[in-house]
Amino acid sequence: MGLGEFGRIEKFFKPLATGFPGALDLGDDAAVLPVEGLSGLVVSNDAVVAGVHFRANDPADLVARKALRCNLSDMAAMGAEPLAYTLTLALNRSDATTNDQWVERLASGLATDQECFGVHLIGGDSVSTPGPTMLSITIFGKQRGDVVLRRSGARVGDDIYVSGTIGDAALGLKVLEEALDAGADAAFLADRYHLPRPRVALGLAVLGSATAAMDVSDGLAQDLSHICAASKVAGELSAQDVPLSAPARALLAAGRVTIEDILGGGDDYELLFTAPPAARETVVAISRDVATEVSRIGRIVEGRGITLHEADGRVVPLERLGYRHE
Amino acid sequence: MGLGEFGRIEKFFKPLATGFPGALDLGDDAAVLPVEGLSGLVVSNDAVVAGVHFRANDPADLVARKALRCNLSDMAAMGAEPLAYTLTLALNRSDATTNDQWVERLASGLATDQECFGVHLIGGDSVSTPGPTMLSITIFGKQRGDVVLRRSGARVGDDIYVSGTIGDAALGLKVLEEALDAGADAAFLADRYHLPRPRVALGLAVLGSATAAMDVSDGLAQDLSHICAASKVAGELSAQDVPLSAPARALLAAGRVTIEDILGGGDDYELLFTAPPAARETVVAISRDVATEVSRIGRIVEGRGITLHEADGRVVPLERLGYRHE
Repeated sequence: MGLGEFGRIEKFFKPLATGFPGALDLGDDAAVLPVEGLSGLVVSNDAVVAGVHFRANDPADLVARKALRCNLSDMAAMGAEPLAYTLTLALNRSDATTNDQWVERLASGLATDQECFGVHLIGGDSVSTPGPTMLSITIFGKQRGDVVLRRSGARVGDDIYVSGTIGDAALGLKVLEEALDAGADAAFLADRYHLPRPRVALGLAVLGSATAAMDVSDGLAQDLSHICAASKVAGELSAQDVPLSAPARALLAAGRVTIEDILGGGDDYELLFTAPPAARETVVAISRDVATEVSRIGRIVEGRGITLHEADGRVVPLERLGYRHE
Repeated sequence: MGLGEFGRIEKFFKPLATGFPGALDLGDDAAVLPVEGLSGLVVSNDAVVAGVHFRANDPADLVARKALRCNLSDMAAMGAEPLAYTLTLALNRSDATTNDQWVERLASGLATDQECFGVHLIGGDSVSTPGPTMLSITIFGKQRGDVVLRRSGARVGDDIYVSGTIGDAALGLKVLEEALDAGADAAFLADRYHLPRPRVALGLAVLGSATAAMDVSDGLAQDLSHICAASKVAGELSAQDVPLSAPARALLAAGRVTIEDILGGGDDYELLFTAPPAARETVVAISRDVATEVSRIGRIVEGRGITLHEADGRVVPLERLGYRHE
């Protein structure tokens, strides 16, 4: 006999809402987000399904933190300051994930990341399903002034930048699925799969410098193609400038993984953005200020589509490279 | 070969967002809700799962409209003015509901109710699931001034009111499940199950008069118990004053259904509220102004729990009466 919906809300979720008066202790039909003095509230929504977007036996706290971080990454991509979120939890009726311990662990993961990112649970819904467990998060962020980062502003001549390193999460998934033996690097790569680092501070800092931005969720190549399509331009990526972690670099050098695994894998949740060459020094300064590595990886040109320029001069068209979560 | 996630968004969902500039044509990582001049944004969230909250063979347009209307009913319960919503759609991979026609019909239902209620789709997520199809909606409404309706304000001596009629939806579900033969009234009752009438205008109108409010989703008795618990008072319901439709009254008189079916059934989505006796004339005037029937059905007293007072003087405790969707 478990706690039931009301019991779980009372015990596990209400404590996540106490720091936010507008959550009304999750006791009313809705929450109230204070927006006085704001010009806009930025809203995004990402859902994850067991067996599709996360592994059914992933620890609940990591599942919750990743779900929240994917949403935080959308705030980063818009240059918005995260404020609060709602959670819809559809719990499988009959498998082990339905038990109260699973939800308790899920809530403890959310508590950790609420501390890390300064956000609060303000509402949601909890339902049961005969299907796989699912989390759907809607996140709210404050618009800075009256601007947000968009995908459609990239201009011919702009540089292309990306934060952090690319491909680690996709390799981490291979490790977890035992499709890749990464030896001593296994834990590093698995962690990169489980816990993306949403680039919230970087997103806010490049407002005013970046001409276009989005977060890398479906693979660098595919996501760059979205920016280029929205901006009606083409992108040239320099293969040797795509930032790789030491483990990814070693696996690539050893021929254990391909550049397609790196550029076409998903789950990076790094910030991809464009900025004019005049902003190069500013971008370097921002990178230092927010303590986040930023690499210049290519440029925007006329045309359509994405090409990868190898060090040896080969040019590979990349339009079709990408991972679809669906 | 279906349209896929991007194709469905482009063809079916983008048209639902065109009337709202901040939706950014669903082409960015987030939407922007303009909130200038507002003190608060009211946020609520309700999810429905096929086979749990709706019948798997219910028409997709009605499923979508009901999901949206349940959320609109939360706005009514808070006295907020609905503005926009996001939709997470988890589509079953293999059954008939996954096909593009199902999503097209779902979108057409949303289009109808966007017109009726003046709201717009501004974002969401679309994923596939091996489990049942699920819709999760997050709705946003404007706070009027700096007040909202809460559950916790009922005071001893207040009258209890409810809008519309109670029990029809629960009887409609019985009809659809062939557990009740309602003859010529079958279509009326089924419609009441499929299409609740969120009392948005009434919710806004009673701001300033009502001391507490919520919408009736789990059954009148259970939901009144939530108001009483939050307000630390007890409620007395007058059985003969609970508003029934002619079909429900006839079925009850014929002994075909019980008062428990009526008061304990869910899905009414009527507005339940309390107000002091001094507000009686005001409530009558509001009811007329917003063209919504409102019935005075009991009063708030000291103590805890809910009792039902029958015309013959019998008193029935009702604490445990209610339907849990979970």
